[in-house]
Amino acid sequence: MSTPETFSSPAPPFSGPSDCAATASCAKDRIFQTARNLFYRHGIRGVSVDTIAAEAGTTKVTLYRVFSSKDDLIVQVLQDHTRRFWQVWDEVIAPFEGQPRKQIEALFEALKSRICSKETERGCPVANTAIEIVDVDHPATQLIREHHAEKSRRLRALCHAMGARKPDELGDALTLLIEGAFTARVLFASTTQVETVCIAARALLDSALGAPKT
Amino acid sequence: MSTPETFSSPAPPFSGPSDCAATASCAKDRIFQTARNLFYRHGIRGVSVDTIAAEAGTTKVTLYRVFSSKDDLIVQVLQDHTRRFWQVWDEVIAPFEGQPRKQIEALFEALKSRICSKETERGCPVANTAIEIVDVDHPATQLIREHHAEKSRRLRALCHAMGARKPDELGDALTLLIEGAFTARVLFASTTQVETVCIAARALLDSALGAPKT
Repeated sequence: MSTPETFSSPAPPFSGPSDCAATASCAKDRIFQTARNLFYRHGIRGVSVDTIAAEAGTTKVTLYRVFSSKDDLIVQVLQDHTRRFWQVWDEVIAPFEGQPRKQIEALFEALKSRICSKETERGCPVANTAIEIVDVDHPATQLIREHHAEKSRRLRALCHAMGARKPDELGDALTLLIEGAFTARVLFASTTQVETVCIAARALLDSALGAPKT
Repeated sequence: MSTPETFSSPAPPFSGPSDCAATASCAKDRIFQTARNLFYRHGIRGVSVDTIAAEAGTTKVTLYRVFSSKDDLIVQVLQDHTRRFWQVWDEVIAPFEGQPRKQIEALFEALKSRICSKETERGCPVANTAIEIVDVDHPATQLIREHHAEKSRRLRALCHAMGARKPDELGDALTLLIEGAFTARVLFASTTQVETVCIAARALLDSALGAPKT
Protein backbone atom coordinates (compact mmCIF):
# COMPACT_ATOMS: atom_id res chain seq x y z
CA MET A 1 0.00 0.00 0.00
CA SER A 2 1.27 3.46 -0.83
CA THR A 3 1.65 6.02 1.92
CA PRO A 4 2.64 9.69 1.78
CA GLU A 5 6.17 8.46 2.53
CA THR A 6 6.41 6.99 -0.98
CA PHE A 7 6.38 10.39 -2.80
CA SER A 8 8.78 9.94 -5.72
CA SER A 9 10.38 7.10 -3.87
CA PRO A 10 12.71 4.64 -5.46
CA ALA A 11 11.24 1.14 -5.12
CA PRO A 12 12.63 -1.01 -2.30
CA PRO A 13 15.93 -2.61 -3.32
CA PHE A 14 15.49 -5.86 -5.16
CA SER A 15 16.29 -8.60 -2.73
CA GLY A 16 17.77 -11.11 -5.15
CA PRO A 17 16.64 -13.84 -7.52
CA SER A 18 13.30 -15.31 -6.54
CA ASP A 19 11.49 -18.54 -7.17
CA CYS A 20 9.76 -17.14 -10.22
CA ALA A 21 13.01 -16.37 -12.04
CA ALA A 22 12.13 -18.79 -14.83
CA THR A 23 9.08 -16.96 -16.10
CA ALA A 24 9.30 -14.07 -18.56
CA SER A 25 7.02 -11.76 -16.55
CA CYS A 26 9.07 -12.29 -13.39
CA ALA A 27 12.29 -11.67 -15.29
CA LYS A 28 10.76 -8.48 -16.68
CA ASP A 29 9.72 -7.34 -13.22
CA ARG A 30 13.14 -8.14 -11.80
CA ILE A 31 14.94 -6.28 -14.58
CA PHE A 32 12.56 -3.35 -14.14
CA GLN A 33 13.06 -3.06 -10.37
CA THR A 34 16.82 -3.44 -10.75
CA ALA A 35 16.94 -0.73 -13.43
CA ARG A 36 14.71 1.53 -11.33
CA ASN A 37 17.05 1.26 -8.34
CA LEU A 38 20.28 1.52 -10.32
CA PHE A 39 19.05 4.50 -12.39
CA TYR A 40 18.13 6.32 -9.19
CA ARG A 41 21.38 5.58 -7.40
CA HIS A 42 23.79 6.08 -10.30
CA GLY A 43 21.84 8.10 -12.91
CA ILE A 44 20.66 6.74 -16.25
CA ARG A 45 24.05 7.35 -17.85
CA GLY A 46 25.91 5.72 -14.99
CA VAL A 47 24.32 2.33 -15.60
CA SER A 48 24.83 0.03 -18.59
CA VAL A 49 22.43 -2.59 -19.88
CA ASP A 50 25.08 -5.19 -18.99
CA THR A 51 25.10 -4.03 -15.37
CA ILE A 52 21.30 -4.11 -15.17
CA ALA A 53 21.17 -7.64 -16.61
CA ALA A 54 23.94 -8.87 -14.30
CA GLU A 55 22.44 -7.28 -11.17
CA ALA A 56 19.01 -8.69 -12.06
CA GLY A 57 20.58 -12.13 -12.36
CA THR A 58 19.64 -12.45 -16.02
CA THR A 59 21.17 -11.96 -19.46
CA LYS A 60 21.21 -9.13 -21.98
CA VAL A 61 19.35 -11.40 -24.41
CA THR A 62 16.51 -11.77 -21.89
CA LEU A 63 16.53 -8.05 -21.16
CA TYR A 64 16.15 -7.20 -24.85
CA ARG A 65 13.34 -9.76 -25.14
CA VAL A 66 11.23 -7.81 -22.63
CA PHE A 67 12.45 -4.23 -23.22
CA SER A 68 13.12 -3.03 -26.74
CA SER A 69 16.02 -0.76 -25.66
CA LYS A 70 17.62 1.01 -22.70
CA ASP A 71 15.52 4.06 -23.63
CA ASP A 72 12.38 1.92 -23.41
CA LEU A 73 13.43 0.88 -19.91
CA ILE A 74 14.15 4.51 -18.97
CA VAL A 75 10.71 5.61 -20.19
CA GLN A 76 8.92 2.78 -18.37
CA VAL A 77 10.79 3.57 -15.13
CA LEU A 78 9.81 7.25 -15.45
CA GLN A 79 6.18 6.28 -16.12
CA ASP A 80 6.25 4.25 -12.93
CA HIS A 81 7.72 7.18 -10.94
CA THR A 82 5.09 9.61 -12.23
CA ARG A 83 2.23 7.12 -11.72
CA ARG A 84 3.30 6.62 -8.08
CA PHE A 85 3.76 10.36 -7.62
CA TRP A 86 0.15 11.12 -8.61
CA GLN A 87 -1.14 8.16 -6.65
CA VAL A 88 0.46 9.50 -3.46
CA TRP A 89 -0.60 13.07 -4.33
CA ASP A 90 -4.23 11.92 -4.55
CA GLU A 91 -3.95 9.94 -1.31
CA VAL A 92 -2.46 12.93 0.53
CA ILE A 93 -5.15 15.40 -0.53
CA ALA A 94 -8.12 13.00 -0.25
CA PRO A 95 -8.76 13.55 3.49
CA PHE A 96 -9.09 17.32 2.88
CA GLU A 97 -11.62 17.28 0.07
CA GLY A 98 -13.10 20.76 -0.36
CA GLN A 99 -10.32 22.40 1.71
CA PRO A 100 -7.75 23.36 -0.95
CA ARG A 101 -5.43 25.23 1.39
CA LYS A 102 -5.25 22.26 3.73
CA GLN A 103 -4.61 20.05 0.69
CA ILE A 104 -1.63 22.20 -0.30
CA GLU A 105 -0.28 22.17 3.26
CA ALA A 106 -0.69 18.38 3.44
CA LEU A 107 1.18 18.01 0.13
CA PHE A 108 4.09 20.08 1.41
CA GLU A 109 4.23 18.15 4.70
CA ALA A 110 4.30 14.85 2.81
CA LEU A 111 6.89 16.14 0.35
CA LYS A 112 9.12 17.49 3.11
CA SER A 113 8.99 14.21 4.98
CA ARG A 114 9.79 12.29 1.82
CA ILE A 115 12.56 14.57 0.54
CA CYS A 116 14.33 14.61 3.91
CA SER A 117 14.33 10.81 4.11
CA LYS A 118 17.45 8.78 3.45
CA GLU A 119 15.76 7.07 0.47
CA THR A 120 15.43 10.41 -1.34
CA GLU A 121 19.00 11.60 -0.80
CA ARG A 122 19.48 11.66 -4.58
CA GLY A 123 16.55 14.05 -5.05
CA CYS A 124 13.79 13.63 -7.62
CA PRO A 125 14.33 10.75 -10.07
CA VAL A 126 12.31 12.49 -12.79
CA ALA A 127 14.16 15.81 -12.49
CA ASN A 128 17.52 14.02 -12.34
CA THR A 129 16.70 12.19 -15.56
CA ALA A 130 15.78 15.52 -17.16
CA ILE A 131 19.22 16.87 -16.23
CA GLU A 132 20.91 13.83 -17.73
CA ILE A 133 18.93 13.87 -20.99
CA VAL A 134 20.32 16.53 -23.29
CA ASP A 135 18.50 15.48 -26.46
CA VAL A 136 15.04 17.09 -26.64
CA ASP A 137 14.00 14.34 -29.03
CA HIS A 138 14.65 11.66 -26.41
CA PRO A 139 11.42 9.68 -25.82
CA ALA A 140 11.53 10.62 -22.12
CA THR A 141 11.51 14.39 -22.72
CA GLN A 142 7.79 14.64 -23.46
CA LEU A 143 6.92 12.52 -20.44
CA ILE A 144 9.09 14.65 -18.13
CA ARG A 145 7.54 17.87 -19.43
CA GLU A 146 3.99 16.53 -19.15
CA HIS A 147 4.65 15.42 -15.56
CA HIS A 148 5.85 18.87 -14.55
CA ALA A 149 3.17 20.70 -16.51
CA GLU A 150 0.61 18.58 -14.68
CA LYS A 151 2.22 19.42 -11.32
CA SER A 152 2.03 23.12 -12.15
CA ARG A 153 -1.55 22.79 -13.42
CA ARG A 154 -2.68 21.00 -10.24
CA LEU A 155 -1.01 23.51 -7.92
CA ARG A 156 -2.54 26.42 -9.80
CA ALA A 157 -5.95 24.72 -9.65
CA LEU A 158 -5.68 24.31 -5.87
CA CYS A 159 -4.70 27.99 -5.56
CA HIS A 160 -7.71 28.98 -7.67
CA ALA A 161 -9.93 26.76 -5.52
CA MET A 162 -8.69 28.39 -2.29
CA GLY A 163 -9.58 31.81 -3.71
CA ALA A 164 -6.01 33.09 -3.83
CA ARG A 165 -5.52 36.67 -4.98
CA LYS A 166 -2.96 35.63 -7.61
CA PRO A 167 -3.63 31.92 -8.08
CA ASP A 168 -1.38 31.26 -11.09
CA GLU A 169 1.59 33.14 -9.60
CA LEU A 170 1.07 31.45 -6.23
CA GLY A 171 0.84 28.04 -7.90
CA ASP A 172 4.04 28.66 -9.85
CA ALA A 173 5.84 29.94 -6.74
CA LEU A 174 4.85 26.73 -4.93
CA THR A 175 6.08 24.73 -7.93
CA LEU A 176 9.49 26.44 -7.66
CA LEU A 177 9.64 25.60 -3.95
CA ILE A 178 8.99 21.92 -4.60
CA GLU A 179 11.61 21.66 -7.35
CA GLY A 180 14.02 23.66 -5.19
CA ALA A 181 13.54 21.31 -2.24
CA PHE A 182 14.27 18.22 -4.37
CA THR A 183 17.40 19.84 -5.84
CA ALA A 184 18.58 21.23 -2.49
CA ARG A 185 18.49 17.67 -1.10
CA VAL A 186 21.38 16.86 -3.44
CA LEU A 187 23.27 20.16 -3.17
CA PHE A 188 23.53 20.54 0.59
CA ALA A 189 25.31 18.36 3.11
CA SER A 190 22.30 18.50 5.46
CA THR A 191 18.50 18.78 5.10
CA THR A 192 18.33 22.15 6.91
CA GLN A 193 17.30 24.10 3.80
CA VAL A 194 14.80 21.45 2.66
CA GLU A 195 13.15 21.47 6.07
CA THR A 196 12.11 25.09 5.51
CA VAL A 197 9.88 24.12 2.58
CA CYS A 198 6.61 23.94 4.59
CA ILE A 199 7.29 27.23 6.41
CA ALA A 200 8.06 28.82 3.03
CA ALA A 201 4.89 27.41 1.46
CA ARG A 202 2.75 28.69 4.33
CA ALA A 203 4.39 32.11 4.09
CA LEU A 204 3.48 32.20 0.40
CA LEU A 205 -0.08 31.03 1.08
CA ASP A 206 -0.43 33.87 3.64
CA SER A 207 1.26 36.44 1.39
CA ALA A 208 -0.25 38.98 -0.97
CA LEU A 209 -0.38 36.19 -3.59
CA GLY A 210 -2.47 33.98 -1.31
CA ALA A 211 -5.90 33.97 0.16
CA PRO A 212 -7.55 37.22 1.24
CA LYS A 213 -7.27 37.32 5.02
CA THR A 214 -10.65 36.91 6.70
CA MET B 1 33.47 42.55 -18.28
CA SER B 2 30.90 40.70 -16.25
CA THR B 3 27.33 41.92 -16.13
CA PRO B 4 24.34 40.57 -14.22
CA GLU B 5 23.57 38.64 -17.40
CA THR B 6 26.58 36.38 -16.76
CA PHE B 7 25.13 34.71 -13.62
CA SER B 8 26.24 31.07 -13.83
CA SER B 9 26.66 31.51 -17.53
CA PRO B 10 28.51 29.08 -19.69
CA ALA B 11 31.44 30.84 -21.33
CA PRO B 12 30.97 31.99 -24.92
CA PRO B 13 31.55 29.12 -27.35
CA PHE B 14 35.15 28.72 -28.31
CA SER B 15 35.49 30.04 -31.82
CA GLY B 16 38.15 27.64 -33.07
CA PRO B 17 41.92 27.31 -33.09
CA SER B 18 43.66 30.65 -32.65
CA ASP B 19 47.08 32.03 -33.47
CA CYS B 20 48.42 31.10 -30.07
CA ALA B 21 47.69 27.40 -30.50
CA ALA B 22 51.37 26.53 -30.23
CA THR B 23 51.87 27.68 -26.66
CA ALA B 24 51.00 25.49 -23.67
CA SER B 25 48.99 28.17 -21.86
CA CYS B 26 46.84 28.83 -24.94
CA ALA B 27 46.27 25.11 -25.42
CA LYS B 28 45.27 24.88 -21.77
CA ASP B 29 42.86 27.78 -22.12
CA ARG B 30 41.38 26.33 -25.29
CA ILE B 31 40.90 22.90 -23.71
CA PHE B 32 39.39 24.52 -20.63
CA GLN B 33 36.84 26.63 -22.58
CA THR B 34 35.95 23.65 -24.76
CA ALA B 35 35.42 21.42 -21.73
CA ARG B 36 33.40 24.15 -20.00
CA ASN B 37 31.04 24.43 -22.97
CA LEU B 38 30.77 20.73 -23.65
CA PHE B 39 30.21 19.84 -19.97
CA TYR B 40 27.39 22.39 -19.80
CA ARG B 41 25.71 21.29 -23.01
CA HIS B 42 26.09 17.52 -22.63
CA GLY B 43 26.79 16.94 -18.91
CA ILE B 44 30.12 15.78 -17.50
CA ARG B 45 29.31 12.15 -18.23
CA GLY B 46 28.20 12.89 -21.77
CA VAL B 47 31.65 14.13 -22.83
CA SER B 48 34.83 12.08 -23.16
CA VAL B 49 38.38 13.35 -22.90
CA ASP B 50 38.82 12.35 -26.56
CA THR B 51 35.91 14.59 -27.58
CA ILE B 52 37.26 17.53 -25.58
CA ALA B 53 40.73 17.16 -27.13
CA ALA B 54 39.31 16.82 -30.65
CA GLU B 55 36.93 19.80 -30.29
CA ALA B 56 39.75 21.91 -28.86
CA GLY B 57 41.87 21.02 -31.88
CA THR B 58 44.51 19.34 -29.76
CA THR B 59 45.53 15.85 -28.61
CA LYS B 60 44.86 13.77 -25.53
CA VAL B 61 48.60 13.84 -24.78
CA THR B 62 48.51 17.65 -24.65
CA LEU B 63 45.34 17.60 -22.56
CA TYR B 64 46.94 15.31 -19.97
CA ARG B 65 50.04 17.53 -19.92
CA VAL B 66 47.96 20.49 -18.69
CA PHE B 67 45.20 18.70 -16.72
CA SER B 68 46.06 15.70 -14.56
CA SER B 69 42.70 13.98 -15.22
CA LYS B 70 39.14 14.53 -16.41
CA ASP B 71 38.19 15.03 -12.75
CA ASP B 72 40.82 17.77 -12.50
CA LEU B 73 39.21 19.46 -15.50
CA ILE B 74 35.73 19.07 -13.95
CA VAL B 75 36.90 20.63 -10.68
CA GLN B 76 38.62 23.55 -12.45
CA VAL B 77 35.51 24.22 -14.56
CA LEU B 78 33.35 24.23 -11.41
CA GLN B 79 35.81 26.57 -9.67
CA ASP B 80 35.46 28.92 -12.64
CA HIS B 81 31.63 28.77 -12.49
CA THR B 82 31.55 29.50 -8.76
CA ARG B 83 34.16 32.28 -9.04
CA ARG B 84 32.07 34.00 -11.76
CA PHE B 85 28.89 33.45 -9.77
CA TRP B 86 30.24 35.35 -6.75
CA GLN B 87 31.79 38.00 -8.95
CA VAL B 88 28.39 38.74 -10.52
CA TRP B 89 26.66 38.46 -7.14
CA ASP B 90 28.98 41.15 -5.74
CA GLU B 91 28.49 43.36 -8.79
CA VAL B 92 24.70 43.07 -8.57
CA ILE B 93 24.48 44.01 -4.88
CA ALA B 94 27.19 46.70 -4.94
CA PRO B 95 24.91 49.59 -6.04
CA PHE B 96 22.61 48.91 -3.07
CA GLU B 97 25.17 48.92 -0.26
CA GLY B 98 23.39 49.24 3.09
CA GLN B 99 19.98 48.35 1.57
CA PRO B 100 19.84 44.56 2.06
CA ARG B 101 16.26 44.14 0.85
CA LYS B 102 17.08 45.96 -2.37
CA GLN B 103 20.16 43.78 -2.70
CA ILE B 104 18.02 40.63 -2.46
CA GLU B 105 15.54 42.00 -5.01
CA ALA B 106 18.38 42.94 -7.38
CA LEU B 107 19.83 39.43 -7.05
CA PHE B 108 16.49 37.85 -7.94
CA GLU B 109 16.00 40.19 -10.92
CA ALA B 110 19.47 39.34 -12.22
CA LEU B 111 18.95 35.62 -11.63
CA LYS B 112 15.57 35.63 -13.35
CA SER B 113 16.98 37.42 -16.36
CA ARG B 114 19.87 34.99 -16.53
CA ILE B 115 17.89 31.80 -15.96
CA CYS B 116 15.30 32.73 -18.59
CA SER B 117 17.99 33.39 -21.20
CA LYS B 118 18.68 30.91 -23.99
CA GLU B 119 22.26 30.42 -22.71
CA THR B 120 20.95 29.02 -19.43
CA GLU B 121 18.44 26.58 -20.91
CA ARG B 122 20.34 23.70 -19.30
CA GLY B 123 19.95 25.23 -15.83
CA CYS B 124 22.74 25.62 -13.28
CA PRO B 125 26.03 23.98 -14.29
CA VAL B 126 27.05 23.42 -10.67
CA ALA B 127 23.74 21.80 -9.66
CA ASN B 128 23.74 19.67 -12.81
CA THR B 129 27.20 18.39 -11.99
CA ALA B 130 25.99 17.55 -8.47
CA ILE B 131 23.19 15.45 -9.98
CA GLU B 132 25.65 13.64 -12.21
CA ILE B 133 28.20 12.93 -9.48
CA VAL B 134 27.04 10.01 -7.38
CA ASP B 135 30.26 9.39 -5.48
CA VAL B 136 30.46 11.60 -2.38
CA ASP B 137 34.24 11.14 -2.42
CA HIS B 138 34.49 12.78 -5.85
CA PRO B 139 36.83 15.81 -5.62
CA ALA B 140 33.99 18.06 -6.88
CA THR B 141 31.56 17.17 -4.08
CA GLN B 142 33.20 19.37 -1.44
CA LEU B 143 33.37 22.31 -3.84
CA ILE B 144 29.67 21.96 -4.78
CA ARG B 145 28.62 21.78 -1.12
CA GLU B 146 30.78 24.77 -0.15
CA HIS B 147 29.33 26.82 -3.02
CA HIS B 148 25.76 26.14 -1.91
CA ALA B 149 26.53 26.55 1.79
CA GLU B 150 28.00 29.95 0.92
CA LYS B 151 24.88 30.88 -1.09
CA SER B 152 22.69 29.95 1.88
CA ARG B 153 24.99 31.80 4.31
CA ARG B 154 24.93 34.99 2.22
CA LEU B 155 21.15 34.94 1.79
CA ARG B 156 20.64 34.41 5.51
CA ALA B 157 23.08 37.27 6.24
CA LEU B 158 21.14 39.63 3.95
CA CYS B 159 17.88 38.61 5.69
CA HIS B 160 19.48 39.30 9.07
CA ALA B 161 20.72 42.65 7.79
CA MET B 162 17.24 43.66 6.60
CA GLY B 163 15.86 42.91 10.07
CA ALA B 164 13.65 40.03 8.95
CA ARG B 165 11.47 38.43 11.60
CA LYS B 166 12.77 34.93 10.78
CA PRO B 167 16.02 35.62 8.93
CA ASP B 168 17.36 32.05 8.70
CA GLU B 169 14.04 30.60 7.53
CA LEU B 170 13.58 33.44 5.05
CA GLY B 171 17.10 32.98 3.72
CA ASP B 172 16.56 29.24 3.30
CA ALA B 173 13.19 29.80 1.60
CA LEU B 174 14.89 32.17 -0.86
CA THR B 175 17.60 29.54 -1.41
CA LEU B 176 14.93 26.98 -2.32
CA LEU B 177 13.38 29.44 -4.79
CA ILE B 178 16.71 29.99 -6.55
CA GLU B 179 17.48 26.28 -6.84
CA GLY B 180 13.90 25.67 -7.95
CA ALA B 181 14.15 28.29 -10.69
CA PHE B 182 17.33 26.78 -12.10
CA THR B 183 15.81 23.28 -12.07
CA ALA B 184 12.46 24.44 -13.47
CA ARG B 185 14.32 25.92 -16.44
CA VAL B 186 15.16 22.35 -17.47
CA LEU B 187 11.88 20.69 -16.49
CA PHE B 188 9.37 22.94 -18.24
CA ALA B 189 8.91 23.60 -21.93
CA SER B 190 8.59 27.36 -21.28
CA THR B 191 10.00 29.88 -18.77
CA THR B 192 6.56 30.73 -17.32
CA GLN B 193 7.25 29.16 -13.93
CA VAL B 194 10.77 30.59 -13.71
CA GLU B 195 9.45 34.08 -14.43
CA THR B 196 7.50 33.98 -11.16
CA VAL B 197 10.70 33.81 -9.12
CA CYS B 198 10.89 37.57 -8.37
CA ILE B 199 7.21 37.82 -7.46
CA ALA B 200 7.65 34.80 -5.19
CA ALA B 201 10.77 36.28 -3.57
CA ARG B 202 9.00 39.59 -2.92
CA ALA B 203 6.00 37.76 -1.46
CA LEU B 204 8.37 35.96 0.94
CA LEU B 205 10.16 39.21 1.83
CA ASP B 206 6.77 40.76 2.65
CA SER B 207 5.52 37.69 4.49
CA ALA B 208 5.54 36.89 8.20
CA LEU B 209 9.12 35.63 7.71
CA GLY B 210 10.25 38.98 6.32
CA ALA B 211 10.73 42.48 7.55
CA PRO B 212 8.35 43.94 10.13
CA LYS B 213 5.94 46.18 8.22
CA THR B 214 6.48 49.84 9.06
